[in-house]
Amino acid sequence: MGGGADDNLTAILYKQGDLRLENRPVPEPNDDEVLLRMASVGICGSDVHYWTNGRIGDFIVKAPMIIGHEAAGVVTKCGKNVKHLKPGDRVAIEPGVPCRRCDSCKYGRYNLCPDIVFCATPPCHGNLCRYYTHDAAFCYKRAGVTLGSVVLICGAGPIGLVSLLVARSMGASKIIVSDLAENRLQVAKELGADLVLKVDPSASGQDLALQVEQTLGVMPNISIECSGAESSIRLAILSTISGGCVLLVGLGAPEVKLPVVNAAVREVDIRGVFRYANCYPAALALVATGKVDVKKLITHRFKLEETLQAFETAKTGAGGAIKVMISC
Amino acid sequence: MGGGADDNLTAILYKQGDLRLENRPVPEPNDDEVLLRMASVGICGSDVHYWTNGRIGDFIVKAPMIIGHEAAGVVTKCGKNVKHLKPGDRVAIEPGVPCRRCDSCKYGRYNLCPDIVFCATPPCHGNLCRYYTHDAAFCYKRAGVTLGSVVLICGAGPIGLVSLLVARSMGASKIIVSDLAENRLQVAKELGADLVLKVDPSASGQDLALQVEQTLGVMPNISIECSGAESSIRLAILSTISGGCVLLVGLGAPEVKLPVVNAAVREVDIRGVFRYANCYPAALALVATGKVDVKKLITHRFKLEETLQAFETAKTGAGGAIKVMISC
Amino acid sequence: MGGGADDNLTAILYKQGDLRLENRPVPEPNDDEVLLRMASVGICGSDVHYWTNGRIGDFIVKAPMIIGHEAAGVVTKCGKNVKHLKPGDRVAIEPGVPCRRCDSCKYGRYNLCPDIVFCATPPCHGNLCRYYTHDAAFCYKRAGVTLGSVVLICGAGPIGLVSLLVARSMGASKIIVSDLAENRLQVAKELGADLVLKVDPSASGQDLALQVEQTLGVMPNISIECSGAESSIRLAILSTISGGCVLLVGLGAPEVKLPVVNAAVREVDIRGVFRYANCYPAALALVATGKVDVKKLITHRFKLEETLQAFETAKTGAGGAIKVMISC
Amino acid sequence: MGGGADDNLTAILYKQGDLRLENRPVPEPNDDEVLLRMASVGICGSDVHYWTNGRIGDFIVKAPMIIGHEAAGVVTKCGKNVKHLKPGDRVAIEPGVPCRRCDSCKYGRYNLCPDIVFCATPPCHGNLCRYYTHDAAFCYKRAGVTLGSVVLICGAGPIGLVSLLVARSMGASKIIVSDLAENRLQVAKELGADLVLKVDPSASGQDLALQVEQTLGVMPNISIECSGAESSIRLAILSTISGGCVLLVGLGAPEVKLPVVNAAVREVDIRGVFRYANCYPAALALVATGKVDVKKLITHRFKLEETLQAFETAKTGAGGAIKVMISC
Repeated sequence: MGGGADDNLTAILYKQGDLRLENRPVPEPNDDEVLLRMASVGICGSDVHYWTNGRIGDFIVKAPMIIGHEAAGVVTKCGKNVKHLKPGDRVAIEPGVPCRRCDSCKYGRYNLCPDIVFCATPPCHGNLCRYYTHDAAFCYKRAGVTLGSVVLICGAGPIGLVSLLVARSMGASKIIVSDLAENRLQVAKELGADLVLKVDPSASGQDLALQVEQTLGVMPNISIECSGAESSIRLAILSTISGGCVLLVGLGAPEVKLPVVNAAVREVDIRGVFRYANCYPAALALVATGKVDVKKLITHRFKLEETLQAFETAKTGAGGAIKVMISC
Repeated sequence: MGGGADDNLTAILYKQGDLRLENRPVPEPNDDEVLLRMASVGICGSDVHYWTNGRIGDFIVKAPMIIGHEAAGVVTKCGKNVKHLKPGDRVAIEPGVPCRRCDSCKYGRYNLCPDIVFCATPPCHGNLCRYYTHDAAFCYKRAGVTLGSVVLICGAGPIGLVSLLVARSMGASKIIVSDLAENRLQVAKELGADLVLKVDPSASGQDLALQVEQTLGVMPNISIECSGAESSIRLAILSTISGGCVLLVGLGAPEVKLPVVNAAVREVDIRGVFRYANCYPAALALVATGKVDVKKLITHRFKLEETLQAFETAKTGAGGAIKVMISC
Repeated sequence: MGGGADDNLTAILYKQGDLRLENRPVPEPNDDEVLLRMASVGICGSDVHYWTNGRIGDFIVKAPMIIGHEAAGVVTKCGKNVKHLKPGDRVAIEPGVPCRRCDSCKYGRYNLCPDIVFCATPPCHGNLCRYYTHDAAFCYKRAGVTLGSVVLICGAGPIGLVSLLVARSMGASKIIVSDLAENRLQVAKELGADLVLKVDPSASGQDLALQVEQTLGVMPNISIECSGAESSIRLAILSTISGGCVLLVGLGAPEVKLPVVNAAVREVDIRGVFRYANCYPAALALVATGKVDVKKLITHRFKLEETLQAFETAKTGAGGAIKVMISC
Repeated sequence: MGGGADDNLTAILYKQGDLRLENRPVPEPNDDEVLLRMASVGICGSDVHYWTNGRIGDFIVKAPMIIGHEAAGVVTKCGKNVKHLKPGDRVAIEPGVPCRRCDSCKYGRYNLCPDIVFCATPPCHGNLCRYYTHDAAFCYKRAGVTLGSVVLICGAGPIGLVSLLVARSMGASKIIVSDLAENRLQVAKELGADLVLKVDPSASGQDLALQVEQTLGVMPNISIECSGAESSIRLAILSTISGGCVLLVGLGAPEVKLPVVNAAVREVDIRGVFRYANCYPAALALVATGKVDVKKLITHRFKLEETLQAFETAKTGAGGAIKVMISC
């Protein structure tokens, strides 16, 4: 353990204008907590406000309070119920721990929990110190974060590739693209896919979904199906995380066999997307910002007089054709 | 007008496998249309499909049909009702023109309009030709597009600057940041603000809102108020486009005088944001992708033993302090 | 035509405090309008306000304006493009006619259209008169209205019947319940279903969907599938209106063949619903209000000692068993 | 305690087809649980399925399992952390208790929690027995339930009264109407308001909000402000529960002083509503169902020739005028 076991230098706000550094005992984590060796703590406007004013609205510093709540640290010890963290993990610390039992908590709006314990909001202690215990569910590993918007794109044709560019520009944190063809996946990589998956057509949907999860380290929140193939729609459904969403963009056979119970019990929504409504202005704006470089998709250009040749190229995909344009 | 007035070379699909180039008369726009000199047309999978199969599902090529629907052109003539376009404008052409009268249209889901006229879907003609007329409301200027997500951020302190980074990473097409202090606006520019507005504290909210609109060329869809100042909240409300949204992130005086009727009749929602729920994983993922470079916000670092000095720096903003960190 | 052809008594607000009745010529409808024989007009607070103050905010009565905008009438003549109305139809008149071309209109928020023509808001005339023309798309037939929330419930077992009760209490304007068994449909009727459909198992999904539409006079917005049977899920998808939603509540075979292209191109969402989250308080509240009388569903009661007999009854449905309860 | 302390007759499914009644020890609640004397348990299709098939999908009865999960009971003992229940309370029992720590739980979609303990889903025991312990947060008092949609309507003029009728028809579980005038509140009661509050104009907004909460027994989720008065908008904001919504329907003074910090930190959204878009069909459908009886609002009728008299009545509210109609 870094530092002496009894060295827990701690910043304590005794009252307005009276901020002191003192040594405090190293605490013990309970079953659901971790003990953290603090790495760094940011100073928030509210920290400064408590120091200079002694209060914010109805929150008044009436007893000495450890200050600080924008923090990161390293796990040094885990309570016995803690599964997702281990000593050595570097974590960000979400400063509020809600009651988990009230209506706000049940609805997922735990920031409104009336009984939340929030670091450095009187009378709750903060974490500007060397050692600190915190509820493990509110400590997030800082390396290899794979949550946020994780997107699976099935099919690396023009629609799939545009979806990739748009998902990227909308802030997706990780995007995987699947296809049967190696060369299309290569293009997807060049256009910014984080990961690609070459689909083995003989593999089961469950196996492929497992490959998606293992490759990503997590299940995607959103799957954008751009091929229209039955196997691909199945893959999209099976791969998507519970509560996520499958967008059907590609159109293929009118009837397909789908794992509907799997989708229903995991509340994976299946949504159709037909042509466009109110999309052009946003699309043009995205292109105008330069964040979506659609030029990379245009592989061939022909004159109006060469229309038939252009159609042949688009049909056969000769020369690695993705998007074929005709100038008038 | 470019090209001979009677030169309107046109690609016509007569039937399955029978695609011909023919000269057709140049059409006349009606009152709500524009005449376009076509620039370029992309070949879509459906174009190829109609050519090779003569049909897609129930849409069958029964009579010669002009092919093509992914198009851009230059306005050469405007119908008398057309206000937002003029000859010379380069436009992208949205290929479907809905009826504007059915329930789908009224609800804004016009892609589901059963009477939509969609280019190159039988029996409607497409636009792979030299001259073409189209409903002006579905032609979008390609330069200076300012729609999409346009964001006003009021206040360039740490919260405002983080909001800027996040809005940028979420795909905002244009972001303007307002503040009283020139040096903070300078930081906002370095962090990627498209535009900044130095607020004159003696100007009226209406005047400032006009400045925002004139600077952007459009009203913002979303205003993120990060200062908590009454004048700034007023500016956020007055600046936001009808149907848009004001987020109250900054907290200031408990009571403020607001232009509520203005907000109500323009359906500008006013939403509070308190602390965070389910934000940490997404935030960490954004940082992990490297798209949000929060390091730029950290201007000062201190040791735990220097806590008081760190608090002084955060309080006074000395040395251009934005975010002050303490290492434990 | 009722009244003399030249009798068009009209209430005109000349200026503040100066409201006069005058005879005006009967107008002619244009191609998209209808001529209406006005039936009744309500007086709105804004009408009174214009009369007493001559203005509301920036809207000022500068020229004589026909007053009145809360109106109903009878169609007496139709413009040539009008398809959904005919002379004799009694209609409610939505007083604002938007431009249909701006962004607000395209997004379906036409109340925010800056160019809306709104009855009796200066300088636009209202409709407190005998004869009046109005855009036909904003005239709504008053008899046989079938829009609003129209719900199809597939399956009349306990889950289907509870869904019926809840849909009813949530304000659904019309509910149809489908099942194979006549006796279950009888219970659905007793519980408040507006319509029932006995499903012929040999009929195609398309035929059944047509029967649903014909029986209702419109396609349902929401279909709640409570049986889990493949044919029933297909019926739910095919019956639902474009842009509507299918809820999968019943669970059956893990894999089913579905008309996915039909769902996708009509943007019919398919949503899973698994058990419950945050439902109990709302459900209990509904029961407490007395609006959902679930007691009707309880057909049999047994003692704890008679558990096996209770299970037999639930299994066989003997004696018309719907919900079987055991008292402890 | 009702029954002998050692009498806990319990229905146990040993394996497929083998359902037995046995006496089991009465369990002890832990700190967050209650001990329940079971009142009644419904038999669900899944209970029957486990009995007849021994499994549902991957859930297999491998060890003796207490059956039953649709249950209600009476609290007989409370764990030491339980605050909202006391012995004697009659409760409904939500059968799934989630882990409260995973992402699904944090987001409020706890039905998707992979570690949920769900009654009578192998290997978890159910509750068809005499005595049973359950997490107190998932036991809901059956009398006096006040959750669900609780609505405050500020102002009992025509708009407020129509809002009352619509809220009622949309399934609101409890509606309170506030006004200054006793006679208007009387009409609100006749139209179905559960509660009314006569506003004392000299009382503070905080005091009035407290009165609303005490009268309802809970804070409203939605407040519909129909008067436009500053004091009334303040009341709407202060009364609304954290995370709820205020709709501004009434329009009054252009500028009003509002408790914005209170709204922001409690995430009470303030939304404008301007005129109508896509409302007429739904409104007419509601009226057509007979669930919204707007005729009660019409207090006076005049002929077109009596327009001035009608306007006078609407202006003064003479004779208890609410809605005044003119027949053409």
